[in-house]
Amino acid sequence: QSTLNFGDSPHTRVNILTGEKVLVSPHRSKRPWQGQVEDLPGDNRPEYDPQCYLCPTNKRADGDINPDYKESFVFVNDFSALLKDTSQQEFNEDELFVAETERGICKVIAFTPRHDLTLPEMDQAAIKSVIDLWQKEFVELSKVDWIKYIQIFENKGAIMGCSNPHPHGQIWSQNHLPVEIQKECVQQQQYFNKYQRTILSDYVKAELRKEERIIDENDSFVSLVPFWAAWPYETMIVSKRSIQNIAGFDEKEKTDFAAILKLLTTRYDNLFKTSFPYSAGMHQAPVNDGDHPEWHWHMHFYPPLLRSATVKKFMVGYEMLANPQRDITPEVAAEQLRNCSTVHYKAK
Amino acid sequence: QSTLNFGDSPHTRVNILTGEKVLVSPHRSKRPWQGQVEDLPGDNRPEYDPQCYLCPTNKRADGDINPDYKESFVFVNDFSALLKDTSQQEFNEDELFVAETERGICKVIAFTPRHDLTLPEMDQAAIKSVIDLWQKEFVELSKVDWIKYIQIFENKGAIMGCSNPHPHGQIWSQNHLPVEIQKECVQQQQYFNKYQRTILSDYVKAELRKEERIIDENDSFVSLVPFWAAWPYETMIVSKRSIQNIAGFDEKEKTDFAAILKLLTTRYDNLFKTSFPYSAGMHQAPVNDGDHPEWHWHMHFYPPLLRSATVKKFMVGYEMLANPQRDITPEVAAEQLRNCSTVHYKAK
Ligand SMILES: O=P(O)(O)O[C@H]1O[C@H](CO)[C@@H](O)[C@H](O)[C@H]1O
Ligand SMILES: O=P(O)(O)O[C@H]1O[C@H](CO)[C@@H](O)[C@H](O)[C@H]1O
Repeated sequence: QSTLNFGDSPHTRVNILTGEKVLVSPHRSKRPWQGQVEDLPGDNRPEYDPQCYLCPTNKRADGDINPDYKESFVFVNDFSALLKDTSQQEFNEDELFVAETERGICKVIAFTPRHDLTLPEMDQAAIKSVIDLWQKEFVELSKVDWIKYIQIFENKGAIMGCSNPHPHGQIWSQNHLPVEIQKECVQQQQYFNKYQRTILSDYVKAELRKEERIIDENDSFVSLVPFWAAWPYETMIVSKRSIQNIAGFDEKEKTDFAAILKLLTTRYDNLFKTSFPYSAGMHQAPVNDGDHPEWHWHMHFYPPLLRSATVKKFMVGYEMLANPQRDITPEVAAEQLRNCSTVHYKAK
Repeated sequence: QSTLNFGDSPHTRVNILTGEKVLVSPHRSKRPWQGQVEDLPGDNRPEYDPQCYLCPTNKRADGDINPDYKESFVFVNDFSALLKDTSQQEFNEDELFVAETERGICKVIAFTPRHDLTLPEMDQAAIKSVIDLWQKEFVELSKVDWIKYIQIFENKGAIMGCSNPHPHGQIWSQNHLPVEIQKECVQQQQYFNKYQRTILSDYVKAELRKEERIIDENDSFVSLVPFWAAWPYETMIVSKRSIQNIAGFDEKEKTDFAAILKLLTTRYDNLFKTSFPYSAGMHQAPVNDGDHPEWHWHMHFYPPLLRSATVKKFMVGYEMLANPQRDITPEVAAEQLRNCSTVHYKAK
């Protein structure tokens, strides 16, 4: 066995889902920070905001009136990046200018009528009903024969480009595979061809044995800091079963997913006693494309904060031009998250 | 020829240097912005700041005293992410946990003794002396036999994680190829094998014919918004000759590089009448690795601003999980930059 000291020497680790590496500089965490400090998010939102385009009964940009919904609510994005009536066209000039049209449907999903909540502050039953809706939307979108991939995600916090604090997520579906999914297809396929098991089932088993990067575990899911995490507190929720997509979750799994989602997001908020910003989203098998036994459902969390509620990690310069880089190790991050309370700091 | 309407339909374009695509949503630029607004950078810096660790004669974190330098000044980063005495070790557990140590040298380079300037505010001779130093450092670092790649870059502006406004850049060199360079190696090699010409020489010729994405041109260089730009005002400076790295620049080329760099950064500042933030850096052939005739020197500029000095593009959510996405087209961005004055707004 190698004597590589992960806590001490600068090293790279391979992301087995993309095949790309991340640079880890464990010795560098003592670096003082004299750079930009973020604003703290305001913490006194009303339950209902008459100006919010997501609150029940309010008017949206396109003139539609939101229903007086009681659980969650989904609608087509008034400023969709993809449109459902785009016709397929391709362009290739000398292999130098290569393009094609992209067709898709972009939806917005309000998680709760309450303007003042966030996922960790909702009770487990309310989170479960968001999961039910994610599943229902996924199943319905995958019935549209030209849709090949469905991206369910959430941008949380102004620092993550979220322009409305009302708890909500998005679903973008489209007729080609996005680049990050293409990478995960290749990597998962290679492993499956060799071992007839999904790479994430073997990975999760190994992590459960090692324990050091595990945050929470229940009958159906594990949350952990991946060995190759690039963001300081990056995590993944992975299903224990090899499930290709959320359509395959049974009732018990949906309840367990709600439980682990509440635990993880509560730990996040408690880490710096702030509503913890992140972009999170599920990666799932392509749809309308036959069986994908190599695909293993998982959800990524990419949070920007590094040291406190106001100091984030900048993925700039070297990271944009050369290679993602991190200072604290994934093992230290996992330990910190494990040590966070599972009772939300505001609930005390 | 295809009738794909680039100004109208959502479409993807392929980045020929990485092989990855970007989603363009031209119809979406009318979207109102209600999200986070950035602080404006302060604009009244003194010529000399006694607190600045980059100003001449000041003390740095490691106790060293900066010389009373008159042009530019380079030193090893006091908080280097890479260390030169890391020994080579590899780790591979079942293809799931894959890592290896990374050895390197990280340097900081102050562009001028003047605390209050930025590249576009420096005169062309002073920019030329920074280029001379980049070339000298590149040549010296490439004499270190274990160094395989040298990344020269600049983070400009607090919004880009720059923790000190004194004009400076960095040089990180290391003993393996970073991921972005691996991608560009593959793509450039493929094209060169097929045509015995660098992909960028053919690309630049085609862009000069088309004109619509060109910003400036002189005898030796072109600045343009690449067809596949992901950031709203992303640009590239490309050499007209197929030069593998900055060591190959002759005197005339260094002077021409200074000229086009001053033009581009001046246009940037004039676009929103602000010191325009960006991460910029050169991509060059690996060193100590034989001849690389497929490699064509170029410099990327990744600026975050979208609509004004305070509203940036967030590469989050869909972008992190699925695919980079942009709203305004590269053609519109190029036209706006071309229309900017080449006299710096502060000089008037
Ligand atoms: O080295 P600096 O300027 O302290 O730090 C900045 O640039 C580095 C290299 O791009 C990044 O890793 C850091 O996240 C960023 O804050
Ligand atoms: O769709 P929103 O919330 O208006 O916009 C936000 O999420 C999108 C999808 O991740 C990004 O493209 C935008 O840059 C971001 O500001």
